[in-house]
Amino acid sequence: MIVSNPVNIRYLTGINAEGTLLITRKENVYITDGRYIEAVNRTLTIDDGIIVYDIRSIRDEDFENFFLFCNAVGFEENYVTYAKYKEYLRRYKIENMQETENLIEQQRTIKDEDEISKIKQACKLTDDCFKHLKDFIKIGMTEKQVASEIEYFFKTHGAEDVSFDPIVASGVNSSMPHATPTNKKIETGDTIIIDMGCKYDGYCSDMTRTIFIDYVPEEVKNVYDLVLKNQLSTLNEYVDGGNTKIIGKLVENNFEFNKYMLIHALGHGVGLDIHETPVISSRSQHTLKENMVITDEPGIYLPGKFGVRIEDTVLITKNGSLSLTNSEKNYTVIKSK
Amino acid sequence: MIVSNPVNIRYLTGINAEGTLLITRKENVYITDGRYIEAVNRTLTIDDGIIVYDIRSIRDEDFENFFLFCNAVGFEENYVTYAKYKEYLRRYKIENMQETENLIEQQRTIKDEDEISKIKQACKLTDDCFKHLKDFIKIGMTEKQVASEIEYFFKTHGAEDVSFDPIVASGVNSSMPHATPTNKKIETGDTIIIDMGCKYDGYCSDMTRTIFIDYVPEEVKNVYDLVLKNQLSTLNEYVDGGNTKIIGKLVENNFEFNKYMLIHALGHGVGLDIHETPVISSRSQHTLKENMVITDEPGIYLPGKFGVRIEDTVLITKNGSLSLTNSEKNYTVIKSK
Repeated sequence: MIVSNPVNIRYLTGINAEGTLLITRKENVYITDGRYIEAVNRTLTIDDGIIVYDIRSIRDEDFENFFLFCNAVGFEENYVTYAKYKEYLRRYKIENMQETENLIEQQRTIKDEDEISKIKQACKLTDDCFKHLKDFIKIGMTEKQVASEIEYFFKTHGAEDVSFDPIVASGVNSSMPHATPTNKKIETGDTIIIDMGCKYDGYCSDMTRTIFIDYVPEEVKNVYDLVLKNQLSTLNEYVDGGNTKIIGKLVENNFEFNKYMLIHALGHGVGLDIHETPVISSRSQHTLKENMVITDEPGIYLPGKFGVRIEDTVLITKNGSLSLTNSEKNYTVIKSK
Repeated sequence: MIVSNPVNIRYLTGINAEGTLLITRKENVYITDGRYIEAVNRTLTIDDGIIVYDIRSIRDEDFENFFLFCNAVGFEENYVTYAKYKEYLRRYKIENMQETENLIEQQRTIKDEDEISKIKQACKLTDDCFKHLKDFIKIGMTEKQVASEIEYFFKTHGAEDVSFDPIVASGVNSSMPHATPTNKKIETGDTIIIDMGCKYDGYCSDMTRTIFIDYVPEEVKNVYDLVLKNQLSTLNEYVDGGNTKIIGKLVENNFEFNKYMLIHALGHGVGLDIHETPVISSRSQHTLKENMVITDEPGIYLPGKFGVRIEDTVLITKNGSLSLTNSEKNYTVIKSK
């Protein structure tokens, strides 16, 4: 198999660089270039059983030898571009390339103890950051300033990076589920969606809270309560054996019954990537399993008015679900004076 | 043509979201989902001539109608995955998909006035940040702390984002061209490579400086002088009509004559992406043209010892090259007391 996705390579080997991993009949080979050779050699030990090559030192005939006598060579059809696919065929003289249907991504859905402890750490930092924000956010700050503070907090408190660009969407901007932070200033009466997460030793967290400045507008209360009710009831559905289609449908139905809509997925896997398999939605068909880590994030968005989303990162255990992010979910109101 | 790369879509339409642009015989269509519909409609005006669809509202027959009567449909073979390629064939019922060989990326290499002014602004912020760092960096700080400060500076001074994760590589770490910032503390006698840039309204800057704490180690001086000499002489080679192979070879030869090696490309295009066409290297074959924006970044790395890289973002003009980043390139020494 040719492993091209750097996240899958990191999962299998610990290598965090740019290159290609070949799993052949004879040996495991990692091909990289001059920029990474030294860093890769510092990461690996003899026990890893991986031979590292500088791509410049490999002759054309060497490429053809890697997969000699292989009937079929697997590749990651969801990562490899069409152009790269054609290059692999040519360079390695492969007769038969085989789609591997997210083989490694499937392995990645079930987390081991070490992975869970890293995700827990990322979630703890996220809770810490939210606590900090409750003191930090002041009227007159821009959404961008708050987003910068989130990144700065994570990076100066032990996180490797943010797990995605934080969303800080205030007032009418909160009606866009994937709003980019703007120069809009935060003002009294604002509903603010804050969606953020960080990476700890490669592993991601993901949490959303919807908070208020000075008071909770009357028109928002019903929506907030409905979103929270569904967020909590979903936690009860997140069990080993749970069916993602049914769980997604339950929330969709309850929203529709109340004349609202769920316009995005209810959740997604979290790990080395911020968005991993499985998707939890009425349009997906997966079975939840022990030691999956997934999000629970219902939201309602009223264009031109406001939006509400509440999200936790959740571990599936033998005995039900365990929320790894634990910030307050009742009305959080920041007073301007 | 099906345009899938979001950066190409932003270049053509101004839309900054997730979706697919179809340029058909009849009309221009942008297909996105509920998360982005409102934001996209805020970006576009009637004059853009683009019809926006929510993917959930498109029936299977509609997909088949977009490219009816088209002999061939172009796609981005360097962006589209093999799995997506097969999905396009199926969903749009296309007989003949045609590789477009970086058609839009080629258009993007030549910048217009508006694009150049945005890159200039990003470069100015980068110079400002470097000036700030000369005061900010102190002995005992970690590389990560300095990297966080760079991000924080950019985001609180008008940049949209960093253009890539900053590299801050001190002491022995500077020998790795793509080092990730670590918890190593900065100490006296350190050689520090700082490679950073930001995005202004989508457009990137890219600059590297190698600085010193308290003194310039004797063993580093010759290497620094050689890198700087080649960085400056390359500026003279960056002219309309310049050949990237020859320009790359000139530096390689001069390094080899001095018993060193150039282990990465000498430069790359900069624009909406931090790495764009063309690559400037003895292994590339491009002709430089007026209004291209490219980097000039020779470097020498001695594993286990130290590294030196000096880089500017450079505009090719009718009358030669114009450096858009302008921070000091002579020895910059930060005194610990």
